[in-house]
Amino acid sequence: MEDTKAVSRRQFVGGLAAALGYATTGPELELFAQGQARGAGQGRPGGGRGPGGEAQYDAMAKLANNENNYGIPDSVMQSMTEHWKYAGRYGYPDPGLNQAIAEFDGVKPENVMVTAGSGEVLDVVGTTFLQGGKKVLGVEPSYGSVYQHATSIKSEAIKLPLTKDYRQDIGMIIDAARKHEAELGFVYICNPNNPTGQIVTKQEIKELLDSLPAGMPVLIDEAYHHYVDDPNYATSMPYVNEGRPVVVARTFSKIAAMAAMRIGYAVAPTELLQKMRPYSAGSVNVLARYGAAQALKDKAAMEEAKRKTNATRNKTMADLKALGYETIPSQANFFMVGLRREVQPVIAAFREEGVLVGRPFPPMTQHLRVSVGVPEEMDRFMVAFKKVMAQPPATTAQQQ
Amino acid sequence: MEDTKAVSRRQFVGGLAAALGYATTGPELELFAQGQARGAGQGRPGGGRGPGGEAQYDAMAKLANNENNYGIPDSVMQSMTEHWKYAGRYGYPDPGLNQAIAEFDGVKPENVMVTAGSGEVLDVVGTTFLQGGKKVLGVEPSYGSVYQHATSIKSEAIKLPLTKDYRQDIGMIIDAARKHEAELGFVYICNPNNPTGQIVTKQEIKELLDSLPAGMPVLIDEAYHHYVDDPNYATSMPYVNEGRPVVVARTFSKIAAMAAMRIGYAVAPTELLQKMRPYSAGSVNVLARYGAAQALKDKAAMEEAKRKTNATRNKTMADLKALGYETIPSQANFFMVGLRREVQPVIAAFREEGVLVGRPFPPMTQHLRVSVGVPEEMDRFMVAFKKVMAQPPATTAQQQ
Repeated sequence: MEDTKAVSRRQFVGGLAAALGYATTGPELELFAQGQARGAGQGRPGGGRGPGGEAQYDAMAKLANNENNYGIPDSVMQSMTEHWKYAGRYGYPDPGLNQAIAEFDGVKPENVMVTAGSGEVLDVVGTTFLQGGKKVLGVEPSYGSVYQHATSIKSEAIKLPLTKDYRQDIGMIIDAARKHEAELGFVYICNPNNPTGQIVTKQEIKELLDSLPAGMPVLIDEAYHHYVDDPNYATSMPYVNEGRPVVVARTFSKIAAMAAMRIGYAVAPTELLQKMRPYSAGSVNVLARYGAAQALKDKAAMEEAKRKTNATRNKTMADLKALGYETIPSQANFFMVGLRREVQPVIAAFREEGVLVGRPFPPMTQHLRVSVGVPEEMDRFMVAFKKVMAQPPATTAQQQ
Repeated sequence: MEDTKAVSRRQFVGGLAAALGYATTGPELELFAQGQARGAGQGRPGGGRGPGGEAQYDAMAKLANNENNYGIPDSVMQSMTEHWKYAGRYGYPDPGLNQAIAEFDGVKPENVMVTAGSGEVLDVVGTTFLQGGKKVLGVEPSYGSVYQHATSIKSEAIKLPLTKDYRQDIGMIIDAARKHEAELGFVYICNPNNPTGQIVTKQEIKELLDSLPAGMPVLIDEAYHHYVDDPNYATSMPYVNEGRPVVVARTFSKIAAMAAMRIGYAVAPTELLQKMRPYSAGSVNVLARYGAAQALKDKAAMEEAKRKTNATRNKTMADLKALGYETIPSQANFFMVGLRREVQPVIAAFREEGVLVGRPFPPMTQHLRVSVGVPEEMDRFMVAFKKVMAQPPATTAQQQ
């Protein structure tokens, strides 16, 4: 499977290069490194940054990657900058992160594994549980990293379609898991799901765990947990305390706005963690460790980020509805809007307007994923949306 | 195999706890997180930091972990602090790191893989080339991380002794590799070797690569490359250009003093890198990326760090010789001194003096590894050394 993130970046460079008047979109114009992309920005000429590269990037409205544009909380920045003194150390006083996670999530510290972003959790679960050619089962579209990693280690993914209302079909997942039990390494659930923003309800999670073949590991990716308002949702952390074969992945990239600092964690029963640990580099930046520990303590900042983000999301979705466009209900810091036309040329057109929006998520190729930025960015998005959508749909030939 | 780094930290906590008047050395007193230790500081109560924990640690002379106490170069700090603006991003302008590495090392960018410290390179090589129960071949003592990782994935290490003058016996390694070819996954060379500080000469590296079974991967860990003065040493980077099955590991933890920022890299032929990439999280902190790119450009700062470190090392070694203690010639930012007594109680006694020195490296249990700090720290070390060694050797019973 092609690394869609690398593709997305190359396409973005193409759009920007076009805007800057460059002639080609070859790797010599590769402008952007992606902190979490496995190898995507590595082993390639990283240079060739055009004049004003940073200024150009900084000027864009960045609504493409589900980042938190409200920024790192003040208390977190303070904790990080206070600990530069340990930047040259292998050992340093424990920031108390594992304990803080345990308290925040109501689990035991020995069930916590801190990683370089939750992306590392996804990779490590794949490497651990897909050995011997086992397969991962999940839905499409979802966060494709799990499936890409499976492919990279010569395994496969069994990808089920969403329901008509873009939800994960738990009954279908259970049936498929039973049918494919012998060849299955684990089940992947993204909750809320990226890119649709839809949750799996707590009742459905319970049904899933009660109905899967005994011992089948389930990776539940709760990267967007902190944005959920729906009372039908619940974290799956308590299932770890019950000893169920569940790995919950969390990240500081979203609610704490620390994506490029690279820190996340897994919570799982110790038997599973013991299998996973050898495949985790466990190599986490010191500033990120201190910042993450503080982020969990600053509940007011977390609540503020959630409130502002969700309010801005809801306003933008209402604005789009007023224009006659349907959006998918979202419990995350992004949402999808149906365009009734192919999304790829629209994404390119947005770039020309200085607005970065989400990549295509096949098979939902007529839906645009929009990350929620600050209000000023969403204003720019709405202006660009009206302009771009007022133009007739581009033909395939026009879109490169 | 026990994780020696975790042991070392627990022992340190013990020493400090004793100094602070604590009663036990249990995990509830775990004070120090280790950036690179796989799982060592994870899944355990990380809290329990005593009052004044940071102040206590900050006051110690830190000569235990081969860190660079001369600190991060000014230009590198400047580049890192200028790029906080990307801390919340997944994508950001390329710092040009792969290109900078390629230029610095005279290799092609496609042969470079950036990792979260060179420790990740060591893990990834193990995971990649030890599949199916293959073994790693190297010497003991060396940097034990490779052997520990092998054990963690249910593989084994074949560990050969050093020569009488504490060098890696290349003839013996070649013989063993031929003998064990069928069961061998790769050969590990640390050059200069940690903890002895001794190099493998360029002639010996050539002999090794020319004599090993065809296609046998060789991991050459050049973490301390930048400190070497000996003209008989050469980097193994050119062998990658020749297409030999060599993986060279480098780090920004030593010469650039960025250990807790977690950034390093592998240089290898693309066929090897393609096998390795799926097992690398590729999850590297943005500040570390910018800092590393700048570190490679600031050759004056690198030269200054080397000059100061080596001068301080040589002076300390001369001082110890004047006291009648033999040291092993070193080409790195640490050295070993023969104590003519067991090292473990000496390490504990140093802690009581506020000086952290290296852990034991069996079977060299009468040698102390000393990392080279700034001159003031080495003065404290010498004062402590005279005091500690003036006391009679502790019995085993005393050393707890």
